[in-house]
Amino acid sequence: MSAKLIGVGTGPGDPELLTLKAARAIASADVVAYFAKRGNPSNARAIAADLFRPGQIEEALDYPVTTEIHRHANGYRDQIGAFYAEAAARLAMHLDAGRTVAVLSEGDPLFYGSYMHIHVRLAPRYDTEVIPGITAMSGCWSAAGLPLVQGDGILTIVPGTLDEAELSRRLGDTQGAVIMKLGRNLPKVRAALAAAGRLDGAIYVERGTMDNGASIALADKRDDEAPYFSLVLVPGWSDRL
Amino acid sequence: MSAKLIGVGTGPGDPELLTLKAARAIASADVVAYFAKRGNPSNARAIAADLFRPGQIEEALDYPVTTEIHRHANGYRDQIGAFYAEAAARLAMHLDAGRTVAVLSEGDPLFYGSYMHIHVRLAPRYDTEVIPGITAMSGCWSAAGLPLVQGDGILTIVPGTLDEAELSRRLGDTQGAVIMKLGRNLPKVRAALAAAGRLDGAIYVERGTMDNGASIALADKRDDEAPYFSLVLVPGWSDRL
Repeated sequence: MSAKLIGVGTGPGDPELLTLKAARAIASADVVAYFAKRGNPSNARAIAADLFRPGQIEEALDYPVTTEIHRHANGYRDQIGAFYAEAAARLAMHLDAGRTVAVLSEGDPLFYGSYMHIHVRLAPRYDTEVIPGITAMSGCWSAAGLPLVQGDGILTIVPGTLDEAELSRRLGDTQGAVIMKLGRNLPKVRAALAAAGRLDGAIYVERGTMDNGASIALADKRDDEAPYFSLVLVPGWSDRL
Repeated sequence: MSAKLIGVGTGPGDPELLTLKAARAIASADVVAYFAKRGNPSNARAIAADLFRPGQIEEALDYPVTTEIHRHANGYRDQIGAFYAEAAARLAMHLDAGRTVAVLSEGDPLFYGSYMHIHVRLAPRYDTEVIPGITAMSGCWSAAGLPLVQGDGILTIVPGTLDEAELSRRLGDTQGAVIMKLGRNLPKVRAALAAAGRLDGAIYVERGTMDNGASIALADKRDDEAPYFSLVLVPGWSDRL
């Protein structure tokens, strides 16, 4: 055994979209850690479940319940900050005991991943490796068969939480775009795309790499329902040869 | 056998960064196709070489030599367009014969990948699947252990071919950034980052997922040498909890 922290990207949902390297790292780790909302199963654990072996130590890192606290409020920041500090300390104990600790991260660990909070706390002190994963957006444009950007095209990745004017400005100033964090922001995102002249061609993708996933033209979507992890893809490849 | 076109992402270089799904698709395809510069080995083929099995048909799609023609000139466009049309026709013959055709694509097939040119020509006519791959940029920030974007951060992916003012404007108006297509654009990219106040923190990555890969602070890089497939990463996560 040798102490090592490994951030492991599990990809967007389909267990077949784990990399060979990630699959080996999970199967051989002494400790497998994963994030979950308290009281809910961990998505990352579910993706990797078939790789676990008997005798592995599991560390469930359960987010505190924060839905009642606005995420920019001090109370939220304090509570989440303390949670990450405690989670890092818990994993550090395993590292200090000489164990290899794989921290599962949906999608790609260093791309909007919760693992980043562990990484900045522990990577300066322990041997660390990061194994990239297929991002949710890549899983979605692949499932939709949608060529996104080519050649000298610019790709902009924006959260739907921006205000409408800011969204519209950015969507009108790029070739391709990916809009994340839809949820209740979908009507605003639709309006911003229309204002930027980019609604035509925009694709709404829900559960992109799941069996029950689906994609439709956003212009044809009649309701405003969007799970938080749905995406809008704006293809930006006009200059085809 | 059943006719199917499969765009297969091979990831950024390390064969271990193929997905389980990609590895199975390559091993079971009737035909494996890959792009290469004429007279050069195919990078994508090299990544997947251990998965090939005896009896598979290989189709090498050799780009015409175009280094003497500016890529915005009509002659370039005509020559490359004819090349993709011919390559698609060659693969269509296999599909018409009922074969499964895996087209290897470095990185992710629909993210700046050559496979896109095959996809738009054949996907409307044949059963098609796209298997996403780890992008070069993801391989690079993972190798560098560099948290890139978090929360509501915006990520902008730009080619180094933009002019300096345009690069600087965009780099000053985003949280995270990835600058691709460095090559001889490196001095311009460095100047644009400095003008945008983003040179500090920017990381230069060369051959990110290769054994001989390396990353250094761009501000510490003393020369202007940058292979075309090197990257600059600009981390955009300031609001740490």
